[in-house]
Amino acid sequence: MYIVDLIEKKKNNKSLTKDEIKYIINSYVKDEIKDYQMSSLLMAICINGLSSEETFYLTEAMLESGNIIDLSSIKGIKVDKHSTGGVGDKTTLIIAPIVASLGVPIAKMSGRGLGYTGGTIDKLESIPGFNVNININDFIDQVKKINVCIGTTTKEVAPADKKIYALRDVTGTVSSMALIAASIMSKKLATGADKILLDVKYGKGALIKNVKEAIELAKLMVYIGNNHGKETKALITNMDIPLGNMIGNGLEVKEAIEILNGKGNKDLRDLCIVISTYMVSMSKNIDYITAQGEVLKSIRTKSAYNKFLELIKYQGGNLDLISISPNVFEVKTSKSGYINDIDALKIAEICQRLGSGRMYKEDDIDYGVGIEIIKNIGEYVNIGDVIAKVYIGNKTINYNEVIDAFIIEQEKKSKKPIIYGIVK
Amino acid sequence: MYIVDLIEKKKNNKSLTKDEIKYIINSYVKDEIKDYQMSSLLMAICINGLSSEETFYLTEAMLESGNIIDLSSIKGIKVDKHSTGGVGDKTTLIIAPIVASLGVPIAKMSGRGLGYTGGTIDKLESIPGFNVNININDFIDQVKKINVCIGTTTKEVAPADKKIYALRDVTGTVSSMALIAASIMSKKLATGADKILLDVKYGKGALIKNVKEAIELAKLMVYIGNNHGKETKALITNMDIPLGNMIGNGLEVKEAIEILNGKGNKDLRDLCIVISTYMVSMSKNIDYITAQGEVLKSIRTKSAYNKFLELIKYQGGNLDLISISPNVFEVKTSKSGYINDIDALKIAEICQRLGSGRMYKEDDIDYGVGIEIIKNIGEYVNIGDVIAKVYIGNKTINYNEVIDAFIIEQEKKSKKPIIYGIVK
Repeated sequence: MYIVDLIEKKKNNKSLTKDEIKYIINSYVKDEIKDYQMSSLLMAICINGLSSEETFYLTEAMLESGNIIDLSSIKGIKVDKHSTGGVGDKTTLIIAPIVASLGVPIAKMSGRGLGYTGGTIDKLESIPGFNVNININDFIDQVKKINVCIGTTTKEVAPADKKIYALRDVTGTVSSMALIAASIMSKKLATGADKILLDVKYGKGALIKNVKEAIELAKLMVYIGNNHGKETKALITNMDIPLGNMIGNGLEVKEAIEILNGKGNKDLRDLCIVISTYMVSMSKNIDYITAQGEVLKSIRTKSAYNKFLELIKYQGGNLDLISISPNVFEVKTSKSGYINDIDALKIAEICQRLGSGRMYKEDDIDYGVGIEIIKNIGEYVNIGDVIAKVYIGNKTINYNEVIDAFIIEQEKKSKKPIIYGIVK
Repeated sequence: MYIVDLIEKKKNNKSLTKDEIKYIINSYVKDEIKDYQMSSLLMAICINGLSSEETFYLTEAMLESGNIIDLSSIKGIKVDKHSTGGVGDKTTLIIAPIVASLGVPIAKMSGRGLGYTGGTIDKLESIPGFNVNININDFIDQVKKINVCIGTTTKEVAPADKKIYALRDVTGTVSSMALIAASIMSKKLATGADKILLDVKYGKGALIKNVKEAIELAKLMVYIGNNHGKETKALITNMDIPLGNMIGNGLEVKEAIEILNGKGNKDLRDLCIVISTYMVSMSKNIDYITAQGEVLKSIRTKSAYNKFLELIKYQGGNLDLISISPNVFEVKTSKSGYINDIDALKIAEICQRLGSGRMYKEDDIDYGVGIEIIKNIGEYVNIGDVIAKVYIGNKTINYNEVIDAFIIEQEKKSKKPIIYGIVK
């Protein structure tokens, strides 16, 4: 095989075979295929696409480029959850203790964030003392003991994905359904869970901007997971507005605690209940209604919250020491009316400027900064009402940008539901 | 400007501005844009294309990346001729002396070949003593004295093209009308001629396989040339079968001499007369019929041939010393009928295996090897007739491949004309 022939094949919109895709991935990992050849192929893939089959082969090849974590010694059906990412997405912090409290083992490998806001690991690291670097044996041991562990991956999973992802970022080849699906699924399949529940987000604050594409991506990932022999489902959820009221690492831990105590933002709570219910249903092989009953009971009885406290304590965290910036600016509206929209992307950009996310891997995160939405979608506000609080660290922002993110109109508009549907 | 944004723009099939294209070329030459970014952009261009305007801006940017040769001290309208390349294309060796003998100054910068057969310079270097490395002052001086010079370019023209071309070759991004047009025209416009005549070849033995694409490429290059302020015309000519009877460097010099003596292959002679006529017509600003009369007279009176001898002598070559391999294999047909086709690409591949071309820049060429077509298209052959002679050096080939290149059928088919048309 010769890489130029394979590039030309995809350029001419022809299908690549399983062996050809395997050759490409293996040779690229070994540097036998050069970055400039891979990026040319990636662009051809971005424009001409890959079939579901080709995407499956790509995922398998990327998966096989690294380690596959063996969780078989943990009893029970492990269900992994993955979100394609959004603004204010702290669902893992809420869902993991809920389902763990119901006997579903959660061995959650998470990552740090790159972009507007932190990842799950960044959020957990806002809790002083919390240790995320756990070797695989301790990781499995912890799941066996308390049914839940959240940490970074110590073994190298899907190194091909890592290398390709870095290249896509600088060559304008990020936005391809096939490449996104293969990237996510190669990592998910490597983390050793038995079943997978995906949360595919669409809207202003998500990578995927419209619901049609979200469904396409969801179908592709469900196809890959099921084809690999692991039951996979995908929720399609809205990310036009920030998820919940808090955006910022420490703030999001605070909000997770609220939800686990049966309070807080309704959309966020609803979404966490639905995700948890699917996970419980998939793990225990019980119907949705029964699973939902268990989830609601776990929250009501504080069983989920207690599991959260147990998890934080087990990994060394001290919730009392979370530091939120005391330097708070209250953003007041100069307009009365109904809040019909809050631009998730604008809010995310402001938070990044405050220091809540990183542009480069080496950047430090300020865990104490962020935005709290005081008046959310559908609410009526009067001139002078505080609509948001900005928690400021050592970086300044223009507060008008926060105001601009809120669309206030005289007529109340109906709001999109948080959950659009599910792909099974 | 940020290269990833510009790559994404082309990925999304949007137009790049003049300034954006200039930024891309300038930054790439300075290594500020990386190979892996450029190849991604090149693939997006291959698939989504460039408009005529974008292609013109690309050509200008590539042209401006290097030196532009100043031929203004040479009197008369300089017309440059460029062929997109084909099998057995020795037209420059014939045309240059014809038009020079008629008072048209020919300052011809040529190149070595990379691929199946040698370039014009390789063909000339098969003449022992012939010097092609001439500095620009001597070059201009020679044209002033004998009206013709053929050599390699000593000044660096269009370095951006050189860098991009090398990248395209290894990234599957060669076959783009826009990139081919910009590559050719940036070099042509840099060589300082006043007018340009292009020979755009299509068919099995050419880069462009069908006439539709050849016309598209021709129109694009004519647009670029005229837009740059230099009158440009493009002949569309057939390259399904080898041009002439000889393929191989030394053999092609021999064939050029035949044609200059009014003998040899009719297609090749016709093509050379048409090209020369256009060049004379463009240079002297006279009508086609008048120019054709001059060209035919120049050949008939041996004025062209004498100019050829003068050129070879001036640059130090000794025609008597051309060495053609004495090791000749006569290929006989085992089939009777009409020769309806000779596959130019197959013939070229065989010649390369014999050593007439190079795969890598460092490869040595064997000037004495090649193929002589004894029975050409339209001729009737009997079993056992010699249809071709193979001049062999130190490499062996399978002679059945030569037989396979000849399509012999019972019914005589009509042959495509050598000249399809002209784009002005």
